[in-house]
Amino acid sequence: MPARKLFPDFSFEIQARQERARAGTFHTPHGDLLTPIFAPVGTQAAVKALTPAQLQDTGASLILANTYHLYLRPGDDLVAEMGGLHRFMNWPGPILTDSGGYQVFSLKENRTISENGVTFRSHIDGSSHLLTPEKATQIQENLGADIIMAFDECAPPYDKEYNQRAILRTHAWAERCLQAKRRTDQALFGIVQGGIFPDLRGESAIFIASLGFPGHGIGGLSVGETKSELHATLELLDGILPEDKPRYLMGVGTPVDLIQGIRRGIDIFDCVLPTRLARHNAALTSTGRLNLVNAGFARDEQPVEPGCTCYTCTHFSRAYLRHLILAREMLAATLLSIHNLHTLLNLCTQIRESIVAGRFNQFAENYLERVAYPETNLESDNTQ
Amino acid sequence: MPARKLFPDFSFEIQARQERARAGTFHTPHGDLLTPIFAPVGTQAAVKALTPAQLQDTGASLILANTYHLYLRPGDDLVAEMGGLHRFMNWPGPILTDSGGYQVFSLKENRTISENGVTFRSHIDGSSHLLTPEKATQIQENLGADIIMAFDECAPPYDKEYNQRAILRTHAWAERCLQAKRRTDQALFGIVQGGIFPDLRGESAIFIASLGFPGHGIGGLSVGETKSELHATLELLDGILPEDKPRYLMGVGTPVDLIQGIRRGIDIFDCVLPTRLARHNAALTSTGRLNLVNAGFARDEQPVEPGCTCYTCTHFSRAYLRHLILAREMLAATLLSIHNLHTLLNLCTQIRESIVAGRFNQFAENYLERVAYPETNLESDNTQ
Repeated sequence: MPARKLFPDFSFEIQARQERARAGTFHTPHGDLLTPIFAPVGTQAAVKALTPAQLQDTGASLILANTYHLYLRPGDDLVAEMGGLHRFMNWPGPILTDSGGYQVFSLKENRTISENGVTFRSHIDGSSHLLTPEKATQIQENLGADIIMAFDECAPPYDKEYNQRAILRTHAWAERCLQAKRRTDQALFGIVQGGIFPDLRGESAIFIASLGFPGHGIGGLSVGETKSELHATLELLDGILPEDKPRYLMGVGTPVDLIQGIRRGIDIFDCVLPTRLARHNAALTSTGRLNLVNAGFARDEQPVEPGCTCYTCTHFSRAYLRHLILAREMLAATLLSIHNLHTLLNLCTQIRESIVAGRFNQFAENYLERVAYPETNLESDNTQ
Repeated sequence: MPARKLFPDFSFEIQARQERARAGTFHTPHGDLLTPIFAPVGTQAAVKALTPAQLQDTGASLILANTYHLYLRPGDDLVAEMGGLHRFMNWPGPILTDSGGYQVFSLKENRTISENGVTFRSHIDGSSHLLTPEKATQIQENLGADIIMAFDECAPPYDKEYNQRAILRTHAWAERCLQAKRRTDQALFGIVQGGIFPDLRGESAIFIASLGFPGHGIGGLSVGETKSELHATLELLDGILPEDKPRYLMGVGTPVDLIQGIRRGIDIFDCVLPTRLARHNAALTSTGRLNLVNAGFARDEQPVEPGCTCYTCTHFSRAYLRHLILAREMLAATLLSIHNLHTLLNLCTQIRESIVAGRFNQFAENYLERVAYPETNLESDNTQ
């Protein structure tokens, strides 16, 4: 099944490498993605608290929307009728949709899995729905994102028996997604599963890579495993997944996770972290996190991060942000989302430049020495 | 007490008149206000859901902030320390603060009035505070707005005895505010009270006008009286208040109220209506209000108002706005606030042009025929 024919509008070129890190360009119908890249999450066809104009100002190019949420509300048929996601939410750049699998499996109590697919109950109105590989593909074709994802099963990372069954299902479903696909202007990525088990991850990567997808997602990580297990898995997959196709580490991460992933051959990331932290009053900075509620910021005239060129830092003080938070003004979430996304997107730009200039290793070492991000569970959830 | 000396940085010129309507320019230290003008309300030093950049894009020049709220949180001393309101909230244009009187009198159960001032309990933490004319002036000097208001007593519109007492207090307090004033770069406006009673309104206007304020606020309206009582009061005051100073109708209003006020010699308005309606899913249009939740908009590809040039209307459909509302995305409030403010500010621009061109009467007649705004209590509240 030659990738060339199925995905004519997409290609990936690598401009520079340093050890395992890569600086590439992924061509899509809505523009080129310069990798490594971070995708802000717009779960319900909106990145929370930001207009598309503000989002573009942060430096965003690729954004993610969630199939599960949009299927339930407003419905993928409605989005299709309104001209697709790009037009509906007015995002001119590339969009990626997940398959809905991660969300459906997260429902736990409210879903039943079979070989055919997953029956689940809506979190909105309790109605019953069946999501299959064919249905997930059709929904994503209705939504019309540039990158769409195969329907996969995300198993608990330490449960080997479950992961053994889950990868078999994930593999069968990947083939069915490829079969179901009709549109040629969307790149369907396969997803590798297998928990923390090297043998299962290896088996999954070899099989998924054999199917000719134009890119590969790595699922089932950042869901409870340790950092060293995460890193070992990435290193293993880096040796198996084809080098000439982009690798997407799903639902990750923090600035440190980005650097650690890029070091191990990852090209694409997404995470709710920067926008969710913003709504919890926290700012990402190049040296760690700030909680803007702290009384110490009450009369602090400095910007969130001195030297930062984002709209928030060039126009407002920490004292003003703290006031907005205490006064429960939603402008606080907007301004912190702008800053946090700018920080993460700017980090990607700096990393790409350092790879091209052959000084990524040094950049990474300096960064990791300076920064002290506490590990939190905020990073391990794909939804906003 | 010559106005010239007390308020050297302010002057008012009238460029054109048509019957009682006036097109003027009020010069302030932070720029010229082209009247008639509408001031969006930024109660807590933020116009809800908008950045200053977005607010400027709507066409706003003058904005209002509330003394009561800012005194309690974050504190006027803190705002002064941070360089004043303009710098704190990053608004480069003129700002107006009310005196806190309206809010304090609205507390009803939690305040005690004496000749000296008003003792009240904070809605935030129940702490006790005393607001006097001197204190209200000092707070407003700390906040640093361009236009500040005298501390007044807003009585129920139909209680004559109360209004008789209230205007005497309001007059004594107006003199004390003038005495207390220290800064010369702020224009202190006097406020006329008197409910719906022509004799009291007349007495109040004559007294307040005699004190030499550089502008006059009209308080105690849009608080429960009928439209014909409102209009009769404005006509009476139009004959008494000096023509060469701006008149500010406080807490008003709807598009129709603007037209009816301008017809009766009003220059400045403020109201939470456009931003509050936005947070209640309603759009102001040139022909009435739309509730974007209505199922009829689910697949409506039109903008909120066809032909509107605001960011919202040039980028998004009614269908998308309805989706954002149902999905509880705060972006809905932002986009509708942009549209509603643009609509009201654009209306002021059109009115000004029509006065200058000598066709305001025709414009007003056409507008009033077309539009059908239901009266709601949303318009009668000065706070957001």
